[in-house]
Amino acid sequence: MEKIDSHAIFVEPFHVDFTGRIFMGVLGNHLLNAAGNHSQRRGWGIGALNETSHTWVLSRLSIEMTRMPRQFQHCTVRTWVESVMRLFTNRNFAILDSDGQPMGYARSVWAMIDLGTRLPCDLLSLYDGDILNYVVDQEDNVCPIEGHGRFRFRDARLVRTIDTYYSDVDINGHINSIKYIEHILDLFGKENFEHGIRRFEIAYKAESHMGDRLSFFVQDNADAGGTDVEIRKNVTDANPGDVVCQARVIFNK
Amino acid sequence: MEKIDSHAIFVEPFHVDFTGRIFMGVLGNHLLNAAGNHSQRRGWGIGALNETSHTWVLSRLSIEMTRMPRQFQHCTVRTWVESVMRLFTNRNFAILDSDGQPMGYARSVWAMIDLGTRLPCDLLSLYDGDILNYVVDQEDNVCPIEGHGRFRFRDARLVRTIDTYYSDVDINGHINSIKYIEHILDLFGKENFEHGIRRFEIAYKAESHMGDRLSFFVQDNADAGGTDVEIRKNVTDANPGDVVCQARVIFNK
Repeated sequence: MEKIDSHAIFVEPFHVDFTGRIFMGVLGNHLLNAAGNHSQRRGWGIGALNETSHTWVLSRLSIEMTRMPRQFQHCTVRTWVESVMRLFTNRNFAILDSDGQPMGYARSVWAMIDLGTRLPCDLLSLYDGDILNYVVDQEDNVCPIEGHGRFRFRDARLVRTIDTYYSDVDINGHINSIKYIEHILDLFGKENFEHGIRRFEIAYKAESHMGDRLSFFVQDNADAGGTDVEIRKNVTDANPGDVVCQARVIFNK
Repeated sequence: MEKIDSHAIFVEPFHVDFTGRIFMGVLGNHLLNAAGNHSQRRGWGIGALNETSHTWVLSRLSIEMTRMPRQFQHCTVRTWVESVMRLFTNRNFAILDSDGQPMGYARSVWAMIDLGTRLPCDLLSLYDGDILNYVVDQEDNVCPIEGHGRFRFRDARLVRTIDTYYSDVDINGHINSIKYIEHILDLFGKENFEHGIRRFEIAYKAESHMGDRLSFFVQDNADAGGTDVEIRKNVTDANPGDVVCQARVIFNK
């Protein structure tokens, strides 16, 4: 089997923002679907894993676009495994237009956990290390965007607190990875989106559940030319809460 | 050309709720896509209409399911025009499983408006009444669910007020039809969804825009065995606000 998969996407009318560009959350969802299919076809998708009581957990996702897909556009997501370590694997993506020209790229980091213990598993031994057979050759690992950044929150200010509801929750009962992206982008005023988002990064740190209150802390990041956002759950006057995820948003100027 | 179209859908992992059933909003989106494709293929889709500065506006949508599509399921949406009046057309849907067995049905009502005046157009004369060529024969109009109900709000109580943000807004700058469905279902506690939703109805009454505050008023409907919800925008102590939409939710017990 090939090491790289192609996954067709079509940009539906309700999946674009007021500028006609695909929502970053919807694009993220397409990437996760492409990743899921790629794993599934090779025998270590979620279906196979659940039988052995393991599952993939997304740890990092960084998407950088020179052009965002627009309403009614047909695009392709290519995805492959860049590298595998004991506890993490790096998976990359290219988003191509219908002429095969790159519109952007993405990087992601995944761990595998044991559903019983919730502890990470050794990827190098799982299925006799079968995943190593799919690590791409170096020359095929074309993903010319920066790696995942580091977050340092020093003087972040609380800008919003929201309750979580039915529509936020996935089949595992957790707030779903895509909904965090929506809630983060909802912190920004309309004018920011006029020229689109250049880069979006997110680090998933802990799970949250329906009913958890999420507090959003925001800090300018002059070096990156963007804004860093930290989400904490169940913050009170007495308790700083637990960090759920951290994100960086860089708009086109 | 056939009068009835079939539109394939696949239930993606992030499109199901904590019970594994497709979100009603996502199902609604699939129906609207099927409707859009059906119109588009016959020359009176949004693309064609924008050239003549008209667009379709969804007025009513009622979905009734005996089984909800579940994660990873392949289904088909069939859609057709039931009837055409001067200012409205009725479009119906059947949702079938991969064996072609019905899982549920839906009814919808659409108007066409002139984008300049925002006034409704005469469907019987538009494109020389071409839409009349696609009204199905009576024996093919199989949609065994009740018609759209009536709403009477008497003692509705305010249960939530939300602000609207970037992710709520569609390419026209309006709060999108699907997002209302999400926000309405988010009013209900988790336990309601254990056995799924039997019927969901919505009547779109007025547009709202990013930044509008939406207030949700709720009233039990004993006759229907469900709950009626009215959304009003920009309610203040002095102003009851404008009705944006009205909905009815009936859960399986």
